[in-house]
Amino acid sequence: MADKNIPYKIYLEEDEMPLAWYNLRADMKKKPAPLLNPETHKPMTAEELEPVFCRDLIQQELDDTTPYFEIPQEIRNFYRMYRPSPLVRAYCLEEKLQTPAKIYYKFEGSNTSGSHKLNSAIAQAYYAKKQGLRGVTTETGAGQWGTALSMACAYLGLDCKVYMVKCSYEQKPFRREVMRTYGASVTPSPSMDTEVGRRILAEHPGTGGSLGCAISEAVEKAENTEGYRYVLGSVLNQVMLHQTVIGLETKTAMDKYGIKPDLIIGCAGGGSNLGGLIAPFMGEKLRGEADYRFIAVEPASCPSLSRGIYAYDYCDTGKVCPLAKMYTLGSGFMPAANHAGGLRYHGMNPILSQLRYDGLLEAVSVPQTSVFEAAEIFAKVEGILPAPESSHAIKIAIDEAMRCKETGEEKTILFGLTGTGYFDMLAYEKFHNGQMTDYIPSDEEIQANFSKLPAVE
Amino acid sequence: MADKNIPYKIYLEEDEMPLAWYNLRADMKKKPAPLLNPETHKPMTAEELEPVFCRDLIQQELDDTTPYFEIPQEIRNFYRMYRPSPLVRAYCLEEKLQTPAKIYYKFEGSNTSGSHKLNSAIAQAYYAKKQGLRGVTTETGAGQWGTALSMACAYLGLDCKVYMVKCSYEQKPFRREVMRTYGASVTPSPSMDTEVGRRILAEHPGTGGSLGCAISEAVEKAENTEGYRYVLGSVLNQVMLHQTVIGLETKTAMDKYGIKPDLIIGCAGGGSNLGGLIAPFMGEKLRGEADYRFIAVEPASCPSLSRGIYAYDYCDTGKVCPLAKMYTLGSGFMPAANHAGGLRYHGMNPILSQLRYDGLLEAVSVPQTSVFEAAEIFAKVEGILPAPESSHAIKIAIDEAMRCKETGEEKTILFGLTGTGYFDMLAYEKFHNGQMTDYIPSDEEIQANFSKLPAVE
Repeated sequence: MADKNIPYKIYLEEDEMPLAWYNLRADMKKKPAPLLNPETHKPMTAEELEPVFCRDLIQQELDDTTPYFEIPQEIRNFYRMYRPSPLVRAYCLEEKLQTPAKIYYKFEGSNTSGSHKLNSAIAQAYYAKKQGLRGVTTETGAGQWGTALSMACAYLGLDCKVYMVKCSYEQKPFRREVMRTYGASVTPSPSMDTEVGRRILAEHPGTGGSLGCAISEAVEKAENTEGYRYVLGSVLNQVMLHQTVIGLETKTAMDKYGIKPDLIIGCAGGGSNLGGLIAPFMGEKLRGEADYRFIAVEPASCPSLSRGIYAYDYCDTGKVCPLAKMYTLGSGFMPAANHAGGLRYHGMNPILSQLRYDGLLEAVSVPQTSVFEAAEIFAKVEGILPAPESSHAIKIAIDEAMRCKETGEEKTILFGLTGTGYFDMLAYEKFHNGQMTDYIPSDEEIQANFSKLPAVE
Repeated sequence: MADKNIPYKIYLEEDEMPLAWYNLRADMKKKPAPLLNPETHKPMTAEELEPVFCRDLIQQELDDTTPYFEIPQEIRNFYRMYRPSPLVRAYCLEEKLQTPAKIYYKFEGSNTSGSHKLNSAIAQAYYAKKQGLRGVTTETGAGQWGTALSMACAYLGLDCKVYMVKCSYEQKPFRREVMRTYGASVTPSPSMDTEVGRRILAEHPGTGGSLGCAISEAVEKAENTEGYRYVLGSVLNQVMLHQTVIGLETKTAMDKYGIKPDLIIGCAGGGSNLGGLIAPFMGEKLRGEADYRFIAVEPASCPSLSRGIYAYDYCDTGKVCPLAKMYTLGSGFMPAANHAGGLRYHGMNPILSQLRYDGLLEAVSVPQTSVFEAAEIFAKVEGILPAPESSHAIKIAIDEAMRCKETGEEKTILFGLTGTGYFDMLAYEKFHNGQMTDYIPSDEEIQANFSKLPAVE
């Protein structure tokens, strides 16, 4: 059944691992629009960002011309604890589907944080430490990012303060305990810790919180605490930069075996894992060296890239963060209550947004029950229990493989398997019990928040 | 900080993976005592075992002379989905401890079942399928074995019926859902499904169940259901045989880099992971080719190998299984109520028991709070959240490394890291909240059940 020359799992040697992250913006002719000051609507300067973000990270955030950023030795040491991650040939899935397509996935779940988030967490924690800071603040929704950051901070001896969306804090006590195992302090958001938290609690007593609200609290806390800065797990360009380690490893492994993907698929919430996976391939496409199809997969209930508007918007509920030009559903958008799992952010990374706008990246959205169906097929044959988020990519990979079965095409499909679903069993339970429902917002609902976008000319 | 020639993680190539399991008994001069028929006290024959166990597995159980059993191609294909597992040099832990010792661990948690159990689950499911069976029954306590078997059965299209100790069924709903994701049927034990279950429920209404009781139910169900057999996740010699894939990979990897361990450490519940890890090294020792120290680590609250009696005993509460000669606390022994995690079986694998009796294997027991302390140290620096069971080995590895620090010896320590603790966060939570207590049974308590052993001359 197996191609004689392609192993089940391709692991790079340690000396084949990337030495630098790739800054895709350097190869983009149409650059993503700059972050704007929320009050003046002028491009944010490094100085303005300093009270909130770490110095080196600001440079990475703003620089759109330097093609490579060296990965510091300390970060490469940490990467070696859990990287290279395997590039897996999905022989068992291919056989199950009886498809002529060749399917590969890059698996980022083989570390305790259970996801790709660690790639950026260690980088951000490293630069905070290098700057002599005492600690960092952040928000977490489903908990993957908070876990990853807690691990990275424990490793470097940095304080870590996590604002966890209150409903997740209550529904996912085990996630909370993992973070505590790594020594983080975890606060349910909204909290009485911050002004914005107190304001939101006063306006909406009993609210379960939101990602946008937790971001506002974490930013405020960082600004008001000596020796602290704020770090973020997705959306920002710096995060996507760090995540290019995924795509760079994948490309090296594929090149080594002479594999060329026709189609590259990833789930998209804030966009960093998808951006990191596709970056080196997209770079080739932008430079006219090769051609690939790229597909972003979103939940039907939160389809920023596939159904949102491309405009400047607030990144958080409290409107304290810079404005970003991106595909957005409006910062007031909330996914329907039956939405399970992550991928619930209202906007999308500015680089991916620009690529989408320029027709270089496709976007589709899928209902969640179809995602869990795909997850279960995958788990049974490939032996990995995928995170609901990652399973969005599985769903479309299977769809495309089935299309190949109809047409007889032997396409090579690559997708990103960002993490495992160990902490998502409540959602799986709902699915098993037939209690999971789908919700596809109407055009009216999608557009309801468009009028509240900031007026940027 | 790193030895120039030893990478953080040693992965074997696919063509370096073992082609056969190693049967340590072939090299033992003093063979383990045979299983006995619980009624006649005569050695069990293959025919007598046939109604309960699969044919090929019976052969593996009884054969104490054939040194190698070929691993069927189908099982090797499955192994390649998640094996080879990494042999990790614990550089970060060494640095944290400031020890001159060199620490290695073989990590078996990088698959969805989260533990080494999958190595035997796929083998047992394969032989059941080969024999033309419809399904298998089993018991599970903490849930690792049930998860692994569900995965293996899903892969091969076999029915899987799991009796899950009732208190775990209720306290670990997520484990249950993982099994359901793989299509297993999961029943809390004791249940009304079986005669033995009904009897126990009548005698002890409201009981939370026990492993011994769940075994009895699974055996009865297999005997009474057409096309079913019973499979077991530890204790048996066949299970240890399959687990030698761990030790064989480890030995190949160490030989490749010229590493020779002084000390090999593993946790011990039923004994299969420890036996599998040490087997090829113990073989060398038995053949006089090399010398190593071997240490089995048990919970203080269930210390069969370190404080039990070496005698024939029942393997299950219902007394329907064959008698095994082993270190045992008596089949009526129950760990104290504050005991967290697995490693709660009253007996020990017969091969390990014989080795212990012959002075070839050391055994120690450790209180659980010290185990969680070690787990947390390890998690913070090595980035893997260990299962409580596995952390018993970590605890002693750290103790030995600290001893090296005192003496200045540069010992090479190898331990087995059998799995991850994703589903054990309730226990971690207790530990974080200072609610975890220790219990060390008195000699009187340990010996309380010795008088109820079967009278075998």
